[in-house]
Amino acid sequence: MPTNVERLLPGEDAEALLDLARSIATEKLAPQVAEMEERAEFPAEAYALLGRAGLLSLPFPEAHGGSDQPYEVYLQVIEEIATAWPSVGVGASVHTLTATVLAANATEEQRAHWLPQMLSGDWLGAYALSEPQAGSDVSAIATKAVLDEASDEYVVTGTKQWISNGSHADYYILFARTGDDPKRGLSAFVLPGDTAGVSFGVPEKKLGLHCDVTTQVILDGARIPAANRIGPEGAGMRVALSALDAGRLGIAAVATGIAQAALDHAVAYARERRQFGRAVGEFQGLQFLLADMGAEVERARATYLHAARLKDAGRPFSRQASIAKLTASDAAMRVATDAVQVLGGNGYTRDYPVERLFRDAKITQIFEGTNQIQRMVIGRDLLR
Amino acid sequence: MPTNVERLLPGEDAEALLDLARSIATEKLAPQVAEMEERAEFPAEAYALLGRAGLLSLPFPEAHGGSDQPYEVYLQVIEEIATAWPSVGVGASVHTLTATVLAANATEEQRAHWLPQMLSGDWLGAYALSEPQAGSDVSAIATKAVLDEASDEYVVTGTKQWISNGSHADYYILFARTGDDPKRGLSAFVLPGDTAGVSFGVPEKKLGLHCDVTTQVILDGARIPAANRIGPEGAGMRVALSALDAGRLGIAAVATGIAQAALDHAVAYARERRQFGRAVGEFQGLQFLLADMGAEVERARATYLHAARLKDAGRPFSRQASIAKLTASDAAMRVATDAVQVLGGNGYTRDYPVERLFRDAKITQIFEGTNQIQRMVIGRDLLR
Amino acid sequence: MPTNVERLLPGEDAEALLDLARSIATEKLAPQVAEMEERAEFPAEAYALLGRAGLLSLPFPEAHGGSDQPYEVYLQVIEEIATAWPSVGVGASVHTLTATVLAANATEEQRAHWLPQMLSGDWLGAYALSEPQAGSDVSAIATKAVLDEASDEYVVTGTKQWISNGSHADYYILFARTGDDPKRGLSAFVLPGDTAGVSFGVPEKKLGLHCDVTTQVILDGARIPAANRIGPEGAGMRVALSALDAGRLGIAAVATGIAQAALDHAVAYARERRQFGRAVGEFQGLQFLLADMGAEVERARATYLHAARLKDAGRPFSRQASIAKLTASDAAMRVATDAVQVLGGNGYTRDYPVERLFRDAKITQIFEGTNQIQRMVIGRDLLR
Amino acid sequence: MPTNVERLLPGEDAEALLDLARSIATEKLAPQVAEMEERAEFPAEAYALLGRAGLLSLPFPEAHGGSDQPYEVYLQVIEEIATAWPSVGVGASVHTLTATVLAANATEEQRAHWLPQMLSGDWLGAYALSEPQAGSDVSAIATKAVLDEASDEYVVTGTKQWISNGSHADYYILFARTGDDPKRGLSAFVLPGDTAGVSFGVPEKKLGLHCDVTTQVILDGARIPAANRIGPEGAGMRVALSALDAGRLGIAAVATGIAQAALDHAVAYARERRQFGRAVGEFQGLQFLLADMGAEVERARATYLHAARLKDAGRPFSRQASIAKLTASDAAMRVATDAVQVLGGNGYTRDYPVERLFRDAKITQIFEGTNQIQRMVIGRDLLR
Repeated sequence: MPTNVERLLPGEDAEALLDLARSIATEKLAPQVAEMEERAEFPAEAYALLGRAGLLSLPFPEAHGGSDQPYEVYLQVIEEIATAWPSVGVGASVHTLTATVLAANATEEQRAHWLPQMLSGDWLGAYALSEPQAGSDVSAIATKAVLDEASDEYVVTGTKQWISNGSHADYYILFARTGDDPKRGLSAFVLPGDTAGVSFGVPEKKLGLHCDVTTQVILDGARIPAANRIGPEGAGMRVALSALDAGRLGIAAVATGIAQAALDHAVAYARERRQFGRAVGEFQGLQFLLADMGAEVERARATYLHAARLKDAGRPFSRQASIAKLTASDAAMRVATDAVQVLGGNGYTRDYPVERLFRDAKITQIFEGTNQIQRMVIGRDLLR
Repeated sequence: MPTNVERLLPGEDAEALLDLARSIATEKLAPQVAEMEERAEFPAEAYALLGRAGLLSLPFPEAHGGSDQPYEVYLQVIEEIATAWPSVGVGASVHTLTATVLAANATEEQRAHWLPQMLSGDWLGAYALSEPQAGSDVSAIATKAVLDEASDEYVVTGTKQWISNGSHADYYILFARTGDDPKRGLSAFVLPGDTAGVSFGVPEKKLGLHCDVTTQVILDGARIPAANRIGPEGAGMRVALSALDAGRLGIAAVATGIAQAALDHAVAYARERRQFGRAVGEFQGLQFLLADMGAEVERARATYLHAARLKDAGRPFSRQASIAKLTASDAAMRVATDAVQVLGGNGYTRDYPVERLFRDAKITQIFEGTNQIQRMVIGRDLLR
Repeated sequence: MPTNVERLLPGEDAEALLDLARSIATEKLAPQVAEMEERAEFPAEAYALLGRAGLLSLPFPEAHGGSDQPYEVYLQVIEEIATAWPSVGVGASVHTLTATVLAANATEEQRAHWLPQMLSGDWLGAYALSEPQAGSDVSAIATKAVLDEASDEYVVTGTKQWISNGSHADYYILFARTGDDPKRGLSAFVLPGDTAGVSFGVPEKKLGLHCDVTTQVILDGARIPAANRIGPEGAGMRVALSALDAGRLGIAAVATGIAQAALDHAVAYARERRQFGRAVGEFQGLQFLLADMGAEVERARATYLHAARLKDAGRPFSRQASIAKLTASDAAMRVATDAVQVLGGNGYTRDYPVERLFRDAKITQIFEGTNQIQRMVIGRDLLR
Repeated sequence: MPTNVERLLPGEDAEALLDLARSIATEKLAPQVAEMEERAEFPAEAYALLGRAGLLSLPFPEAHGGSDQPYEVYLQVIEEIATAWPSVGVGASVHTLTATVLAANATEEQRAHWLPQMLSGDWLGAYALSEPQAGSDVSAIATKAVLDEASDEYVVTGTKQWISNGSHADYYILFARTGDDPKRGLSAFVLPGDTAGVSFGVPEKKLGLHCDVTTQVILDGARIPAANRIGPEGAGMRVALSALDAGRLGIAAVATGIAQAALDHAVAYARERRQFGRAVGEFQGLQFLLADMGAEVERARATYLHAARLKDAGRPFSRQASIAKLTASDAAMRVATDAVQVLGGNGYTRDYPVERLFRDAKITQIFEGTNQIQRMVIGRDLLR
């Protein structure tokens, strides 16, 4: 039973959406997380379920098949999903990111072709930006796309790494180099997953988040129709940046969900477990630890919601998105570490879920820009 | 010049109020803070100015002379004031607290008598709860109020301590013991400051917040008309509690203002100061420190605003208020400590304002319930 | 290649021992750690190797087959072992603890029987104190030992939990209740591992430290000769306490080894890995992170060595041992978490060793008295 | 009454010296600290007292009038002094630094002239390195020393800043530019305090450490005999560096003393102060806070002692000295901040000593190389 989360939502629609998300999360996702993560199985069914429930289309215009919900609502839905199953929260956030890129940068024709299927969950997306030598440094991307004018197709060669949903996605938003300029030489494409010349590495053996299946995407002369290019040639950096801040908020919401889950388990345990003749929660030392954990969760949520509301209001929110990602991921790591502590020896075993959350939490400090990158963004913005 | 604060306000009225608060803070308060704090002078003029500008009446119904502003707006006004002058932020917050107690617990007649003058700033209030042996422990209050039935007056004897605005206030919300029961034996009163039998200790020599003049209030047979009792006899604990959470939010806003001010000074210095041939802000080590400071400020504000919006929506917000107070005061202490660090040797001298903010910040972790008390509140609420 | 550890050792013997330990750790243990931990295999060979090398007998008198080395040397040997293989560091520390209990509390006859085989590594020991309902609370021990006067044997029934080396050890130092008094009703015994009526649970599925095989020890009418009782009946609490502080220092040394290993991997990676055209170690933000990690390791070691030297000098060291355990285990957790961060996405995979150290580190904050228990010990000692 | 410090000292001489230092600190220094710091008076008498007691000559060879004590003993004496009176700890440490520079770099003749008077305390020294635009960046030093060959005197012009003991010292170790090369153009001199052309700024108005009188030293054509140059022309950087690490250890010892004093006051208060019917020290929340404070102090001391023992053994200790300075100064700041917290509202007033320690602590993170500079040193050393 979760500790009481007091959400402020913009209306009854939003309340209903959150209720729906919470009930799916609690009744459908939570019961399978332990076993699925143990087996590192791709949660295709979960995405289909979320798609059918309309939860993959929230922050998009109705014109494209979306639900016209503000980002603050969408993110809280992601948080609820991640509270039950962090991998699925990440996958849903990545999928939404690919749709965001299209919605913001594609032509009307491209949107009409791709978006409805993506927002209904029929097609699942992946975001193919990182490379082995280009993690946080986008300008180091080496994958090449050469236009074959005869066929009006790009021939793409290179290797992408850390691609969530890799090998399972129906399409990939792919960034490749169409020119030499480090920043203006990038272009963005929609790559269908079944394109010839596309293969996938074995899934990474990760510390956690096993159901967020992550692979290399290997491009060996894969041909992409020019019509699949998003925006003009050379606009890839701009396309990538357009989704950057929104993507960070998605991770902030996932991290908050992880922290909330860890807190819930710790509180439940502290209520029940007895030592020295008392429930351990009655010891002030532990009570203070739980209080600090509770404060971490509360401020993580408040911080990402502030950034989301700025975005919803059309205001600048880049520094706030980086702060939200930094805050929520550090909170997730700290709260999960302390949740294991609250459960003691039990917490250190796979018989309880907190060790899984502890493993999952760590990646939130790393992906979508390491927290070092976030500090660069924040520091520069302050010093402008 | 402050770093860019992105506020989300509920409307144009609120925007105008914040603009007004910021301009008074910047143009009228900030220029005198250094000298006034050096002299530890009571800022009577500042309160008069705020009263005339209508900034002392914000969160009260128009019926009582208030401006019907939500708490989230009121608190941001307090934050702007505290950014310029922390002592005045505290004083204004305490004054508002006394009006809050009346607005929530007094009879219509009492309200009509007291509130208009309090909200216009003609009368300044103080909150006389703590005692030498009863800091955080309200049930230990020893001050006695004995009803003299002949005159229908209470005769009050005892000593109150840590009373902000002490000796300068026009009236005191006073808590005294009318019965033996630790909790049900308390009653609340409005004590006019010029009552015979009331005297004041010398101002405490404090580490900081010198213009928040703090004294003992010594009651030696002071007589208070029974008509000045707020609520029934024995309801004092309930009266005190009714204002507790709101008071904590006031301190959270003050602490956020202190943190914001410290950040602003650090950023400005890092832009200008050169070392090893570069602006020090260009060194990544310092940039990351500023980023962490910026994140502290942002989440302090987001956290108190979340609690305030819960209050404005009539939702429970007690745990959130304690979290906000804990978060913002810890942020103030950390950011102020690091701001001195950014200024280095200069920051350690009275030639720069950061050492003052460092001294001011510390009290926010202590008053209105120490952060240990806040953790008790949070922990218990989580474990319910 | 490890970063440079500057050890201060009491003489050439000690230098030689440390060299020996380091070369075994580096050449024999480190190469197998990844695979063995993956398989969760009990490292019997490793203990045999350490025994043959004389590294399991260090802090014991020559009279008992020991090497008469001070604790400060013994602990640094444990640290070197743990740097290469944390599970083996823990196992060796637990084994030494069992010998410490005998050396300090057994009769000369008992010592002559057990100690030589234990110190040579021919017999491996385990420490059977904790129970499902008695983690940190020794007075809650429920396992019963009833003297059968006819046979002069104790009949023991109950369940021990979290027993390192469980099912693999040759003997167990067992604590059981011989009377009702919570504290004076305990007695200590040497239980041979092949005693009838002793069985073992399946190994716990733990987050980390997989080769530290940990099981329940189930006693169902197991018979222990009265001659195997250590100390008088009822002296069990005293026996347990006699080894407590020394055991905590062992864990502090293990934790320091984990932290050192994590630091070494992070530094090596930061030297090699390039991003934005430079070795990542050249970025000041990362450099400062490494500096903080280096400081954590250095002070963890200095802190446990101070406690060890107090013990070697026959001085009180209980508070210092708790401080060392708290300091070193928190350092291990923090440094390992940050080491994963330094390696970024790579650090999050099983292709690099830091994720293993991150998992191993967590238990050091929990076992041998949680860090909450350590704070109780420290706080009470300060307040005496 | 101090909490129990368990020191490990190398012999009976050292024990006697520590006893002497502690008794002078407790009986002579501690009683005057509050009033002297309030008045910001230079503690000339205190230095004379320490000189007469032989405590200013500890780490120097007997041949020069020293006591041949290892650095680990000298530093613990400084710590004891700083526990009672931080300013005097700093002044004694600075004075010793000036003698260290001479002992390590001067000719035998220079040593014979200066050292005996310095070690006896007859002459007090100051260290004139920093300048307004050259805090941590020695290569930016602008003060010029031009050799007047006719008189064989250097004519020195420039301004030094942050000079402890400024205007009170009998001589100054002065660094000035004799050539253009940023690093090889510096030279070091002994400047008698009464030289014509030397004047002093008004003492800095500092946040704390008021009796560590700190001024500018203004050189306007001051003439220094060439015979007062320490080392060859251009060797100034080397001379400065020779004392750097030792100086940092001095500050680490001072910071540890401040932390110890803050802990002692907090513990004493927690034993006596009652709330909710109990001594506040009995509340586990506060107990844990005290435990963390105790741990900070213990590891600060252990860390600086490890570095000192490396120095005493003739081993490299530069990284360790930076770690010790970083560790101890952060400990001082944290423990002093929390000590004010333990004393609550009382701690925030000048009626109790913890607010003074809180103000004093901050400078230890800044001078002798800011903690940012220490992280640069540590990080680079790790990455070599």
